[in-house]
Amino acid sequence: MLSRHHVAPELLGDALAGLHAHPPLVQCLTNVVAAQWTANILLAVGASPAMVDNPDEAGGFAAVAGGVLINLGTPQHDTAAAMAQAATGAAAAGTPWVLDPVGAGGLPWRTRVALDLLSRSAPAIIRGNASEILGLSGGEGGKGVDSEHTAEAALGAAAELAREHGSVVAVSGAVDHLTDGRRVVRVANGTELLTRVTGTGCALGALMAGFCAVVEDPLLAATAATATLTVAAEEAAGRSRGPGGFAVALLDELALITPAVLAERTRLS
Amino acid sequence: MLSRHHVAPELLGDALAGLHAHPPLVQCLTNVVAAQWTANILLAVGASPAMVDNPDEAGGFAAVAGGVLINLGTPQHDTAAAMAQAATGAAAAGTPWVLDPVGAGGLPWRTRVALDLLSRSAPAIIRGNASEILGLSGGEGGKGVDSEHTAEAALGAAAELAREHGSVVAVSGAVDHLTDGRRVVRVANGTELLTRVTGTGCALGALMAGFCAVVEDPLLAATAATATLTVAAEEAAGRSRGPGGFAVALLDELALITPAVLAERTRLS
Amino acid sequence: MLSRHHVAPELLGDALAGLHAHPPLVQCLTNVVAAQWTANILLAVGASPAMVDNPDEAGGFAAVAGGVLINLGTPQHDTAAAMAQAATGAAAAGTPWVLDPVGAGGLPWRTRVALDLLSRSAPAIIRGNASEILGLSGGEGGKGVDSEHTAEAALGAAAELAREHGSVVAVSGAVDHLTDGRRVVRVANGTELLTRVTGTGCALGALMAGFCAVVEDPLLAATAATATLTVAAEEAAGRSRGPGGFAVALLDELALITPAVLAERTRLS
Repeated sequence: MLSRHHVAPELLGDALAGLHAHPPLVQCLTNVVAAQWTANILLAVGASPAMVDNPDEAGGFAAVAGGVLINLGTPQHDTAAAMAQAATGAAAAGTPWVLDPVGAGGLPWRTRVALDLLSRSAPAIIRGNASEILGLSGGEGGKGVDSEHTAEAALGAAAELAREHGSVVAVSGAVDHLTDGRRVVRVANGTELLTRVTGTGCALGALMAGFCAVVEDPLLAATAATATLTVAAEEAAGRSRGPGGFAVALLDELALITPAVLAERTRLS
Repeated sequence: MLSRHHVAPELLGDALAGLHAHPPLVQCLTNVVAAQWTANILLAVGASPAMVDNPDEAGGFAAVAGGVLINLGTPQHDTAAAMAQAATGAAAAGTPWVLDPVGAGGLPWRTRVALDLLSRSAPAIIRGNASEILGLSGGEGGKGVDSEHTAEAALGAAAELAREHGSVVAVSGAVDHLTDGRRVVRVANGTELLTRVTGTGCALGALMAGFCAVVEDPLLAATAATATLTVAAEEAAGRSRGPGGFAVALLDELALITPAVLAERTRLS
Repeated sequence: MLSRHHVAPELLGDALAGLHAHPPLVQCLTNVVAAQWTANILLAVGASPAMVDNPDEAGGFAAVAGGVLINLGTPQHDTAAAMAQAATGAAAAGTPWVLDPVGAGGLPWRTRVALDLLSRSAPAIIRGNASEILGLSGGEGGKGVDSEHTAEAALGAAAELAREHGSVVAVSGAVDHLTDGRRVVRVANGTELLTRVTGTGCALGALMAGFCAVVEDPLLAATAATATLTVAAEEAAGRSRGPGGFAVALLDELALITPAVLAERTRLS
């Protein structure tokens, strides 16, 4: 039912060139663990992060931002209220937003928060690991925030979720699987070190929100963000002895990666 | 009254091997300053961090986690409520938990929060610097969050606190002192650079929660965590020009340290 | 109307020597993005950070701290209440405090929070980028948290704000402009990489609070903090391939910089 989608690698390079030419303002409502890292990842690629996550300002700011990330890593009552405002504000203004349902399925309260957000407006992209996507689809999910399933195994649920909400669903894993419910793109870049640094998935969601601001097609935006992060990560892994040096090198590589290198090194299928 | 405890260095190596073989899920209710660092320290040694710190989920998750850290670095009303739920949930499920009473003694509200947590259930380990342990014992504590007393000077209060709650009390300092109220272990590893990076003590508490999930004896768990962090820190210090590089190298060394190296380099007395 | 102020470079060196000799306790009520970074910057120069930002403790602690930073990067209702307590507590105790009105002008709620803080007591220093200083002065401000104006363009508004509150106003930019409403100091150090790492401005505010604890004149304190950060940043930039390595090297250089080097390399006008 799902057709393999041929994304021309040049389109990925064009997307990155567009992000460099028109640095997007990315509003992040994210968790306290990944907030600094997420902002630094966005700054490294040239985007402007703005962590506006209180209920008094989040909705209004979503109308000004180029893209919005809503990440459920460490929700509290105040920030969850802000997320509802941001989703509603983004919908009203036509600002694309990305949902990262961290821990969905395994953790009941935030699963309800995620479903409430989905009922307010359709995100351009839903991004998570296999357990989270399964959990959001009504499956069992994982016991924690790390995935116990492969991205491949969640593809059916991802496609269904995509069709239900009219969103792109991006499932991260050793091979990332991205689908809009009809087409599927696989990105086979990356390194195991991405799982040894906290918040790389969270930062990927923010990059997706940034690419949504400069690229029309959310499937291309999600693919460009995934490719940018994972291609830079491969280069960074080659320069590191461990996860500490890798995280530092990843920021450096994100600042150095060019559209031509991105187009050349991305392994799509 | 306190007897010097001979921990066989091999037991420390075995504990680290156990953590590598059965990576624990560590729930962290910690401060916003050290949250990312703590997660990255846990990931570096191979454990799985889960920062579930809201009142709607913290109690239930404590039943699923292998160990729980409750750290009072930046408590707010919401997160303090979550901590109470987590302590109660951990006790009900038999999950070991670690209390890090940051700033206790010097700061009255959080001292009451800490005492309330202690009245709910006995932590496997209470971890702090000398001022905090003295402060929790009803002494004066320090004016801030940095210790003004040596670990040695707090040993009497630590042993009393340990006997009162049936917990291990770990006092960090140039030489770390750990006691269950009868036995004392001293760990003489480390580097002054550990005091120039924020949250190293906070991360140590999380490592202790992780080792509690794989080792029966909390005194051994606390010792293994202390040794792992401080032995890795000595190696990292040798590779750094300052605190920035040291923090990066510490994550690398935590990912590289083997049970054999740990057993060989730990200086116990 | 504004006179160019000749700060003798030796005074900057003396200020740094004073900070090394008497490490200040700096209370930070700051945002979740920059909290760890800010603490690490303070520790690197030898100061003691204390992130006491809850409404039950913030006011009392401001009486004990040597300097207080209030930063509006990610305010929530609880932390905004704590900020009000801290400003009042600092005023009552004579503790100098620094206001960093992140996003003021562009974001209405936090602009009101900032103005409420200013009505409680006069900060020793108000620090922001040009858009924030313009926004706080009743101008338009920026759409986000990054500045769209040059520091030079905001100098008139800065001087007016300084005279209105009896504060020093520090406007960061390619050339930093600092004024007490009568005198102006320009610091022409720095690197573009400071704009590619999140929270460097936030950390600068914390350094200013630290220098206020050891230097009488707030204009000198603000200048010494700005010079320390930007001179160290120049050295760090020379050792980095990108923003990741730069952030690490900046902490190293802040730990290594001496009063003599600071006095020699600062470019004042």
